[in-house]
Amino acid sequence: MKIDHISTTSATNGGDTAICRTFEVAVFDRRDLSLPTVVASPYPVVGDELNLIPPLNFAMVDNGIFRSGFPDSANFSFLQTLGLRSIICLCPEPYPEATTEFLKDGGIKLYQFGIEGYKEPFVNIPQDTIREALKVVLDAKNHPVLIHCKRGKHRTGCLVGCLRKLQKWCLTSIFDEYQRFAAAKARVADQRFMELFDVSTLKHMPLSFSCSKR
Amino acid sequence: MKIDHISTTSATNGGDTAICRTFEVAVFDRRDLSLPTVVASPYPVVGDELNLIPPLNFAMVDNGIFRSGFPDSANFSFLQTLGLRSIICLCPEPYPEATTEFLKDGGIKLYQFGIEGYKEPFVNIPQDTIREALKVVLDAKNHPVLIHCKRGKHRTGCLVGCLRKLQKWCLTSIFDEYQRFAAAKARVADQRFMELFDVSTLKHMPLSFSCSKR
Repeated sequence: MKIDHISTTSATNGGDTAICRTFEVAVFDRRDLSLPTVVASPYPVVGDELNLIPPLNFAMVDNGIFRSGFPDSANFSFLQTLGLRSIICLCPEPYPEATTEFLKDGGIKLYQFGIEGYKEPFVNIPQDTIREALKVVLDAKNHPVLIHCKRGKHRTGCLVGCLRKLQKWCLTSIFDEYQRFAAAKARVADQRFMELFDVSTLKHMPLSFSCSKR
Repeated sequence: MKIDHISTTSATNGGDTAICRTFEVAVFDRRDLSLPTVVASPYPVVGDELNLIPPLNFAMVDNGIFRSGFPDSANFSFLQTLGLRSIICLCPEPYPEATTEFLKDGGIKLYQFGIEGYKEPFVNIPQDTIREALKVVLDAKNHPVLIHCKRGKHRTGCLVGCLRKLQKWCLTSIFDEYQRFAAAKARVADQRFMELFDVSTLKHMPLSFSCSKR
């Protein structure tokens, strides 16, 4: 696994534990906001077949923002169609070698916020970590960006829910969207987290999304 | 209900029944592809409150394409943030006066494809009508566009599923997305319709979506 650059954010979570590990797996200068150039793919899509496989629980959140469960090699052809600039991984587990290579080939930057999975009632979604992840989501320089955790239900659902608060969605609609992805696994603790999450410190950040035109 | 212009498409469904009724509720020249200008809103959003209410089952499908259930006046403030150019209504019922006025005020063009709701096993989704609606979806001049039916499950789900076929999604993922919105109301007949729908005649149309960069 070749990593050209590793850095941690200056924000820390209660001491010296880094909230985010950033992996630049290839050096690309794409600071401009134009869409990335898509080059010839090593993951062929042949003829008329329906052969693009989005990751589990894949969906578009807003302009330049996608969500899903853990991507694997079956999803590479599909992911390439998104022209991703970055991925926000909310799991602590490292990627398999093939996924790291895929990111490297595509010049995709990885932001890893290692939030442990948990079972109710032992719920502990770290607010500071979600806040740092949200800053990455809000930065249009990272778009198109894919947010994912393991199944695209809880950690991803909480981060997207906090984004919806910034977009001033009413809580009922935020919970409805959360439940559409979490389905039978929806958790009251996650919904309480979203309800109590304080977005006031993030309001200075510009929202470039389709649902924020006013 | 003031309608400045009504037209029907040339395509017909087995004779002289018009597939689509088009309502231009205001005269706007927005043939260019720039985003529409959002003017001061008569539907106020106040302070820090979470008071934007998306329609039932609202979601983003792809760049410039949204889906939902039947919008009502509680959703007007939210809908205004989308800067819609057009709406595709898949129900035969006319809009209430307030909704017609909202479209008129926003210069939003209405394409109405009146597909009757039905109960299994009496299923009859007209392929020609979905094909004509899909052409409207694919025309970037209509974006941003909202597709809706009554609950955003069946008619809307079928149209979005056919779009996904054009985007070469595998059937498993198309059905998974359909079921996320239809939930307990998912219908085998709808899934069979999507599986058998022939997209070959639409392949000449350019796809400007995020999921079609190759």
